[in-house]
Amino acid sequence: MKASLYQGNKTFTTETVEDVMPKAGEVRVKVAYCGVCGSDLHLYHGAFDKRIKSMPHIAGHEISGVITELAEGVTKWNVGDRVVVRPLGSCGECLACRQGHSHVCSNLLIYGIETPGGFASSWTVPADIIHEIPDSLSMEHGALIEPVAVVCHANQRGGTQKGDNVVVIGGGPIGILTAMVARYKGANVIISEVNESRLALAKEMGFDAISPINTDVIEYVFSKTNGDGADIIFDVAGVQAAVNTMTKLTHPHSKIVVVAAYQKPVEFNLRDLYMKEVTLIPSRVYAAVDFEEAIAIINEGGIDCEKVISGIMPLSQVKEAMDKSLSAEACKILIDCQSEN
Amino acid sequence: MKASLYQGNKTFTTETVEDVMPKAGEVRVKVAYCGVCGSDLHLYHGAFDKRIKSMPHIAGHEISGVITELAEGVTKWNVGDRVVVRPLGSCGECLACRQGHSHVCSNLLIYGIETPGGFASSWTVPADIIHEIPDSLSMEHGALIEPVAVVCHANQRGGTQKGDNVVVIGGGPIGILTAMVARYKGANVIISEVNESRLALAKEMGFDAISPINTDVIEYVFSKTNGDGADIIFDVAGVQAAVNTMTKLTHPHSKIVVVAAYQKPVEFNLRDLYMKEVTLIPSRVYAAVDFEEAIAIINEGGIDCEKVISGIMPLSQVKEAMDKSLSAEACKILIDCQSEN
Repeated sequence: MKASLYQGNKTFTTETVEDVMPKAGEVRVKVAYCGVCGSDLHLYHGAFDKRIKSMPHIAGHEISGVITELAEGVTKWNVGDRVVVRPLGSCGECLACRQGHSHVCSNLLIYGIETPGGFASSWTVPADIIHEIPDSLSMEHGALIEPVAVVCHANQRGGTQKGDNVVVIGGGPIGILTAMVARYKGANVIISEVNESRLALAKEMGFDAISPINTDVIEYVFSKTNGDGADIIFDVAGVQAAVNTMTKLTHPHSKIVVVAAYQKPVEFNLRDLYMKEVTLIPSRVYAAVDFEEAIAIINEGGIDCEKVISGIMPLSQVKEAMDKSLSAEACKILIDCQSEN
Repeated sequence: MKASLYQGNKTFTTETVEDVMPKAGEVRVKVAYCGVCGSDLHLYHGAFDKRIKSMPHIAGHEISGVITELAEGVTKWNVGDRVVVRPLGSCGECLACRQGHSHVCSNLLIYGIETPGGFASSWTVPADIIHEIPDSLSMEHGALIEPVAVVCHANQRGGTQKGDNVVVIGGGPIGILTAMVARYKGANVIISEVNESRLALAKEMGFDAISPINTDVIEYVFSKTNGDGADIIFDVAGVQAAVNTMTKLTHPHSKIVVVAAYQKPVEFNLRDLYMKEVTLIPSRVYAAVDFEEAIAIINEGGIDCEKVISGIMPLSQVKEAMDKSLSAEACKILIDCQSEN
């Protein structure tokens, strides 16, 4: 099979590598598209070099594809099924798994980081982490299911309901998708984003989007909500400025959903939360139901996929796709894993 | 009536002042006992001088007493009823009130801070903020209902259940009461407290109590919970060291209940919460149901009131009671408001 190999030090090569035959309980998926995720960008910067088991490494995990091979013990699937992968492996034995929260397993494996991933012409994975996608859903749009599942989970954690006033801090790919799912659920959404390109894209998608550089976000949110403040604030930025703002956008019993993975401690005003009994709810990855919801929402047209996908690049240009994603001028870049150039 | 008057600058005088006649909808309560609260200590330090409407001021709000007078419109109560006061006033018009969270009303009045309080031989308050106490409950124990309601609310916010592993960080009066209510609900409780006197008292009350000065609290909690960590962590300390520890005591989907009112921002590790989807739930004051639960728990013997009450001092010694409370050698000091010395 063809694969994009991460060699460390910001280097990718495209090579023909040995096919990975499915073992008992596994399926082999011919990958159509694989999106570039924020975590792939961390990997690109070397942040996961210690988590990667062996180099070179195949990254990527936001795929759509078709099953081409089944190993013994796989009865639920057929060759030709159109699928996506929920790229999590859990131990089944830790407290999180025993309590039914296997997506935050204490020994969580993220496929494409701790295992080889989907920037390749085929990907062999356990049969119990795939989801079928309907024929009405294109392979391009299918590659958005994984990030949409992230934001379905975030909206589920926050309990987004029709009529809620929602603020999304951070208008990158996950921020935009969070806003879209919240809007799909009937919420009134304001996006705060510093980057001009992202801001323009958010506006183009019909969002009330403002820049904290030239707008007082707190004043704006209160004026847009008749002085009430936001019911739910999604922190998809992960920076100190977002933390300073988000606790001020609240009313009593608002919820702050932290979708961002902070790399270091921040200065935090716990008193703001205390005075209003504002709950802080972190949201990490997804459960199976979030994939099911993501598939349904995309299939129903709830995500403006054509605008979210900024470009499709060949397997030989993973590095270029990473650079483009980092520039913030793109929203979501897909790698066409069917391309053999 | 006799009253202890806060004159500012850490000064109290005991004087005879004019009786406050109940207006429509109010009752006058002959105060038996009034406990010294942590917020009274803040007041003592001048922290509330700007919130106090007029000086001199009568502080105190943790009272038990007997109704001696009813104004027009009060039909639910009778002279002679044994009662306690839920010392909150809400506007009824802000979003919190309209959403049914009037205890975190945006215009919340705390009786005894924004209004005159209960360090006096009688206290005139609205009839709709009093609760009856059963005859089986002594007036001394009745004066503990308000702080017990605080911790009933905290346990309700955290969802404490039988068998839960609970850690209470901070073993002052509210910490000890939090632990007692958690224990009453069937939780396994560990208390972490730096002060030797408080530690000794917690142990005397039968708690597994440790000092972070000579014990690695994180290691201790994991070893005592078979490596699981705590289901619920109550932060009743409100200091940076507590924040550093509490996020490390968790397992996936643990809950951290912040009962402490932080005075300034802290350094906070949001990533610890994110990785395990640990929810942070602030808990402020109480609702009416928390008073009902507190009355029931004390009446059923769930609180070791005799050990919690460290001393009873006369109305003329409010300042001395404050100093004693601040020394951390006392748990809860009551002021005997029936004393005329």
